[in-house]
Amino acid sequence: MKPISDQIKEKPWLGWLIFFATIVVVFILGLFASSIVERRAEAQFTYTPQVEHSQYEPRNEVWGENFPRQYQTYMQTSDTTFESKYNGAKRIDMLAKYPEFVILWADYGFAKEYNQGRGHYHAIDDIREILRTGAPIDGKESPMPNTCWTCKSPDVPRLMSEIGPAEFYRGTWEEKGHEIVNPIGCADCHDAETMNLRISRPALIEAFERQGKDITMASHQEMRSLVCAQCHVEYYFNKDKVEGVQYLTFPWDNGFAIEDMEKYYDGMEFSDWTHGLSRAPMLKAQHPDYEVYSTGIHASRGVSCADCHMPYMNEGGQKFTDHHIQSPLNNVANSCQVCHRDETEELVATVYKRQDQIAHNREKLEELLVRAHVEAKHAWDFGATEEQMEDILMDIRHAQWRWDFSAAGHGNSFHNPVELGRIIGDGISIAQESRIKLARVLASLGHNEAIEYPDISTKAKAQAYLGMDMATLNQEKETFLNTVVPQWLEKAKEREANYPVQIN
Amino acid sequence: MKPISDQIKEKPWLGWLIFFATIVVVFILGLFASSIVERRAEAQFTYTPQVEHSQYEPRNEVWGENFPRQYQTYMQTSDTTFESKYNGAKRIDMLAKYPEFVILWADYGFAKEYNQGRGHYHAIDDIREILRTGAPIDGKESPMPNTCWTCKSPDVPRLMSEIGPAEFYRGTWEEKGHEIVNPIGCADCHDAETMNLRISRPALIEAFERQGKDITMASHQEMRSLVCAQCHVEYYFNKDKVEGVQYLTFPWDNGFAIEDMEKYYDGMEFSDWTHGLSRAPMLKAQHPDYEVYSTGIHASRGVSCADCHMPYMNEGGQKFTDHHIQSPLNNVANSCQVCHRDETEELVATVYKRQDQIAHNREKLEELLVRAHVEAKHAWDFGATEEQMEDILMDIRHAQWRWDFSAAGHGNSFHNPVELGRIIGDGISIAQESRIKLARVLASLGHNEAIEYPDISTKAKAQAYLGMDMATLNQEKETFLNTVVPQWLEKAKEREANYPVQIN
Repeated sequence: MKPISDQIKEKPWLGWLIFFATIVVVFILGLFASSIVERRAEAQFTYTPQVEHSQYEPRNEVWGENFPRQYQTYMQTSDTTFESKYNGAKRIDMLAKYPEFVILWADYGFAKEYNQGRGHYHAIDDIREILRTGAPIDGKESPMPNTCWTCKSPDVPRLMSEIGPAEFYRGTWEEKGHEIVNPIGCADCHDAETMNLRISRPALIEAFERQGKDITMASHQEMRSLVCAQCHVEYYFNKDKVEGVQYLTFPWDNGFAIEDMEKYYDGMEFSDWTHGLSRAPMLKAQHPDYEVYSTGIHASRGVSCADCHMPYMNEGGQKFTDHHIQSPLNNVANSCQVCHRDETEELVATVYKRQDQIAHNREKLEELLVRAHVEAKHAWDFGATEEQMEDILMDIRHAQWRWDFSAAGHGNSFHNPVELGRIIGDGISIAQESRIKLARVLASLGHNEAIEYPDISTKAKAQAYLGMDMATLNQEKETFLNTVVPQWLEKAKEREANYPVQIN
Repeated sequence: MKPISDQIKEKPWLGWLIFFATIVVVFILGLFASSIVERRAEAQFTYTPQVEHSQYEPRNEVWGENFPRQYQTYMQTSDTTFESKYNGAKRIDMLAKYPEFVILWADYGFAKEYNQGRGHYHAIDDIREILRTGAPIDGKESPMPNTCWTCKSPDVPRLMSEIGPAEFYRGTWEEKGHEIVNPIGCADCHDAETMNLRISRPALIEAFERQGKDITMASHQEMRSLVCAQCHVEYYFNKDKVEGVQYLTFPWDNGFAIEDMEKYYDGMEFSDWTHGLSRAPMLKAQHPDYEVYSTGIHASRGVSCADCHMPYMNEGGQKFTDHHIQSPLNNVANSCQVCHRDETEELVATVYKRQDQIAHNREKLEELLVRAHVEAKHAWDFGATEEQMEDILMDIRHAQWRWDFSAAGHGNSFHNPVELGRIIGDGISIAQESRIKLARVLASLGHNEAIEYPDISTKAKAQAYLGMDMATLNQEKETFLNTVVPQWLEKAKEREANYPVQIN
């Protein structure tokens, strides 16, 4: 074959063919290159703010201008289809599902209303609408302090930056209703400049400090759990730190195990309330999610909260964190299956099986605690003395602490089912010990027979057993929601209109 | 360069050089080929029996002639360094470790002696030397039936093939002492012709049949657990099947869960013995290893017993199953780490943590059961009636069944810790319920105060509390071992000298 140059000399059209073919190929290459640059631009664009705002911007939609994907997935926390699958209602009423809870929380706010948690998007609605915060109208106070707002909103770090945590906590819940209107969101976990994860709540920082640890030394992977641990923990309101203030505090000084926290509370003779039937000095466990997770297998293998509850996604060539925080069981492909090579159905079945195994004894413990409270009430009625009851009441306190610690956490029976089994087994043992002692006290008072289990087969019956006037509570709440809350919203709107947001 | 043929024409020595170089290379190739053939031969050799023997050859060393690697690893089950790490003794004395067990088994053989299991190699020594089988000398019978031999030896399928299972089980333990001398081994699990896994014990086959299942349909992977399930299960001695025979039976007809087996036993009003203190109709759980494993995560992911307890090994180019059956924690690299990409230390720590979490409540349940038995004894002593005690004794039966089921299994708290937690929690609840009822019965008899916990801080104290004459039992046993056992061995030697083994 002749060299190409000789061929072109013979057939000039061949030269033109090569020339145009080259042009076409180069044009297509240009298209590809352009596409790559565009994708790069898209990936870069998160770092080029569309609007500028302060660290204390409480409105998630403003942050969302710069981070549309994160914001749009965050907005999916408004979804309630998962809940409505169960009863078609706005919320899952846990007292209707477990009327025993009403008895366990006699004389405490939770006996009025307790619902399964909904997505972060609903945080503000849910705290306003629940009976526990009461109906503070016309100068009447809410039964709850402002401390209750702490976990509900990015308005909290804003307000704390202005008046400090102690002044934030001070006073009753209705005082700050007009200040706190945006549900849990961006500013709660992020730095506005760098988008790094950021601890915005003092209680966690203070708990670390008391343990001699510096939270600013936490790695990024640790921060992917610690931002959650700002709220998803066991906590209490300390009345001894600042005069007149219920100061939000984590009881971690002795450690994370349930016995460590019990020792902490017992040591300071702290109780959340006195039980309405047994008069036991009770502890209300909050939601010790981080503590239980920390003792579990996923934590010890280095898996963070976000790894399962906010897995990475890919969209338009950009990798980002799914801000639709939810049960990983709704998203097995992106959570569990990143590590576990098993079918979705099998993975879900495994989790349900564990939950059922734990629920088996947890529900038994609920019944035993109801019995203990009711038997103690009978003992008092028959004339038991403080001295006779002292030990018994401490047993009831310790047994219910174990039940509540197990029941109140989100996903506890997944995060560490073995530890939950241990805790609940302990709780059963102690609850029954109190009942053995009660049997002796009752016998000594001339009542040596089993006390009948009350008819608490529905929430209404359980609340009636305690003499609770639910009709009035509900009526007052409705009035509050229709009169006070609209005023709060109006005030907030005026204030937010003046926030400095610069559009680039 | 000139063609090589031209070069050789010019320099003849070059031709010779190439010739000899070729010879050297071909020789080396020959060496390699020979090595490959040899390795093949070695790999093949397992399938070319050196000796021929029958299916019912009981001597492991005879099978070992054909399968030296399997046999040599099997022989490692004689190892006792793992045990001696703990106390330097021949066996770990569980009654010394947990003196409460003596009380829990009052009037039952286990209160005399109970040791942690040793390797299969020791099966025969251990059943001869334990106090539970007694000292049958001069026409005195053993307290145990021949059924007790069933799991101890490949002499069992041999003898069963001759006289059938019912006649095998018939009679007391000393009658077949001269027949059963080889410890658990090859013929218990293998077919002599094909080396396939084989079920040699009728109880498992019969249990499958009663459930309408055909064990011959089991896959090879299932068989890698089922051969273990011939013995590592819950079983009892059925006295109603064949007149005068304690027939080995698995209580699986209602299912594998602990409640299923309890229902089975309760339904037939079966009890292993009447408790020496409380007079409760007791159940002795054996070692429900297969049942607990079957409900656990490893079984549901298709992992067999052998996968962890007999992992594959490689030696001399041959892959084979490690017959040194032992805790996978002694062999993490070949067991756990085949699937789990974690450090050995971390994997072991995880297992120990779970075991500790389960032990926490299991030990509590032990204490509560001791209390229940002792309180029941006091109730009887104070004049309680059968009617008053009936419910209480059933509670004690059910609570201790849950404890024993949890405690008796090998590795239960690893195989399914969540289920164990559930079972033990249930046990605590029921044990305490019995004590509440006991408090009322005691109060009704004029004794309304706590019953003191006995001093059972050592095995000797616990056995003395029950009035057991250990010195006599030990003395008689020693005489039996020195006089009767040597006669058994002599007889067996004579018999075995006549077995047909053909050396190829």
